[in-house]
Amino acid sequence: MSAAWAPPALAAFDPALEARLRALVDGKAKPPGALGRLEDLAVQVGLIQGRADPRIHKATVLVFAGDHGLSEEGVSAYPSAVTAAMVGLFLSGRASVNAFAAAVGADVRVVDVGVAADLPQHPWLVAAKVRAGTRNAAREPAMTEAECAAALLAGLDAAQAAVRDGAEAIALGEMGIGNTAAASLVLHRLAPAPLADCVGAGAGHDAAGMARKAAVLTRAAARSDAAEPFEVLRQFGGYEIAAIAGAALGAAALRTPVVVDGFIAGAGVLAAVRMAPQLAAYCVFAHRSAERGHALMLEALGARPLFDLGLRLGEGTGAVLAIPLLRAAARLVTDVADLAEVVGPP
Amino acid sequence: MSAAWAPPALAAFDPALEARLRALVDGKAKPPGALGRLEDLAVQVGLIQGRADPRIHKATVLVFAGDHGLSEEGVSAYPSAVTAAMVGLFLSGRASVNAFAAAVGADVRVVDVGVAADLPQHPWLVAAKVRAGTRNAAREPAMTEAECAAALLAGLDAAQAAVRDGAEAIALGEMGIGNTAAASLVLHRLAPAPLADCVGAGAGHDAAGMARKAAVLTRAAARSDAAEPFEVLRQFGGYEIAAIAGAALGAAALRTPVVVDGFIAGAGVLAAVRMAPQLAAYCVFAHRSAERGHALMLEALGARPLFDLGLRLGEGTGAVLAIPLLRAAARLVTDVADLAEVVGPP
Repeated sequence: MSAAWAPPALAAFDPALEARLRALVDGKAKPPGALGRLEDLAVQVGLIQGRADPRIHKATVLVFAGDHGLSEEGVSAYPSAVTAAMVGLFLSGRASVNAFAAAVGADVRVVDVGVAADLPQHPWLVAAKVRAGTRNAAREPAMTEAECAAALLAGLDAAQAAVRDGAEAIALGEMGIGNTAAASLVLHRLAPAPLADCVGAGAGHDAAGMARKAAVLTRAAARSDAAEPFEVLRQFGGYEIAAIAGAALGAAALRTPVVVDGFIAGAGVLAAVRMAPQLAAYCVFAHRSAERGHALMLEALGARPLFDLGLRLGEGTGAVLAIPLLRAAARLVTDVADLAEVVGPP
Repeated sequence: MSAAWAPPALAAFDPALEARLRALVDGKAKPPGALGRLEDLAVQVGLIQGRADPRIHKATVLVFAGDHGLSEEGVSAYPSAVTAAMVGLFLSGRASVNAFAAAVGADVRVVDVGVAADLPQHPWLVAAKVRAGTRNAAREPAMTEAECAAALLAGLDAAQAAVRDGAEAIALGEMGIGNTAAASLVLHRLAPAPLADCVGAGAGHDAAGMARKAAVLTRAAARSDAAEPFEVLRQFGGYEIAAIAGAALGAAALRTPVVVDGFIAGAGVLAAVRMAPQLAAYCVFAHRSAERGHALMLEALGARPLFDLGLRLGEGTGAVLAIPLLRAAARLVTDVADLAEVVGPP
């Protein structure tokens, strides 16, 4: 990895607590197993929090934003300036992630780790810019070692600050024109999988756009044979992708469930899981994205997402929609009576 | 049908409003189609409510409860008395549906249309008992015509009262020992489909229990060749299943989205859709249940549920979990800026 970055220690789950949580869930006033995956989620949330009375009230979605030197190569259907414009929209409360967060009762915070524009101060904005956009990964490493470590640390700090502010679950989202391309390179190296299987339409491409994107990514991939997660992030990642890796680790280190959005957030989490395999157990994968390559990514993570609604927006929109499921799972453990109370002891 | 029951008129959707809602959703600050099924749900909720600014704040889950004469035949793994005990638990706020409703911010109301016990008054209980349990459908029609009409009307009234109390979405759930068996018969006649494909494990059966249940249902089915929805409900249904049919129609008549839980709620809604096909467009099918026969039921309804979490509890637990998705979809239309504001006019 790097002298400037080491992943935090993550607690192993307690097998005695797991048995206790499973017994609690099995004993609830319902036929055994009748709540399907919500029962597993309940046990997982309890194990993550290290308590037999899990609770998820306050939840925060962190939207990590950064620009990409790669976008000079025309890998995205939108210009780089859209990143800053969308950050402005998040801060005005009028983007999709704000609407969904309002619908489920979650807070939105935006973390600028690499937007190529000066952003005015705002109470929801965490200013942690590493640099105004990564370097062009088709020509040179996207980041220096120091920048990659700084982005990881910025993510870790942002997640831990949100937990200290009371968040009992952290949802991870992102915004960054060009970041589907960067995520494809990260997936290619860390799955690992053939590059062609990792490249999709992103925010929208016609056939010519797709061919151009594939050619650029082939050039970028040829430049480095990096396969170790820190170096893969440094060579190919975005600041927001590295920050997501750090945020997942930071939340997990504070025993807080990490709710992972789609393809790009997944790339950050994949890098983090390659650094600290124990992290996977702290993650809830919200949804199966419509982005090509996401199925492969979920497989590389051993993940089974909660739903499949054809989402491919990012911003954390899918992760936010999973928050009520975590809350319901936690309340199954704490709020529901035992079957013995209803039908008498077995 | 019956002299005592006619389904209410349902408004046809306005094609001009549909075009307007689709244009609104397409114009939002996101790549076209990037929110997948949430976009379709947004259009559907707007069409149901008949407004270009759909809103779902208050939502109510109605849990219809009734007992089944069929349970004398040993079609369930639990005794009939569990129905009343579970109603007591709903009213104490300590059942799974209460926990999930608290997690998403929804109200729970219990409608007694046929519990075989006297239930004390309670502010959350709608007392609308038609009879203390249906007759044994293996030997005679489950209900008289008047009882079936009364159950349909009780459901309609309960849903419309909830809407008048401010509910902007109605989730439909149920409790009734033996009602998976009744629902299987309803599905068998109204899909229609071979009885054997409609019978599953319900709340839990071993192989012997399954064989007994199948034999009882074969006997019941042989007793009547009913195929018309009212008569199928009368011969084979439960009071809670008929009430769910009425509730779906009642909510739809007041232009309120109907969120359908699993196999048993689905049987009621299937009967209602056979009475008034336009109803299907007012329904949101929450989840794919683990109960055998539900896939067949969804197919008969032309329904594609929102998620598949292996739930098979009932009580409305799955429907409640879909409420945040409806809220998010409505807010997509009302809260999110247009793309033109972010990137300039096209």
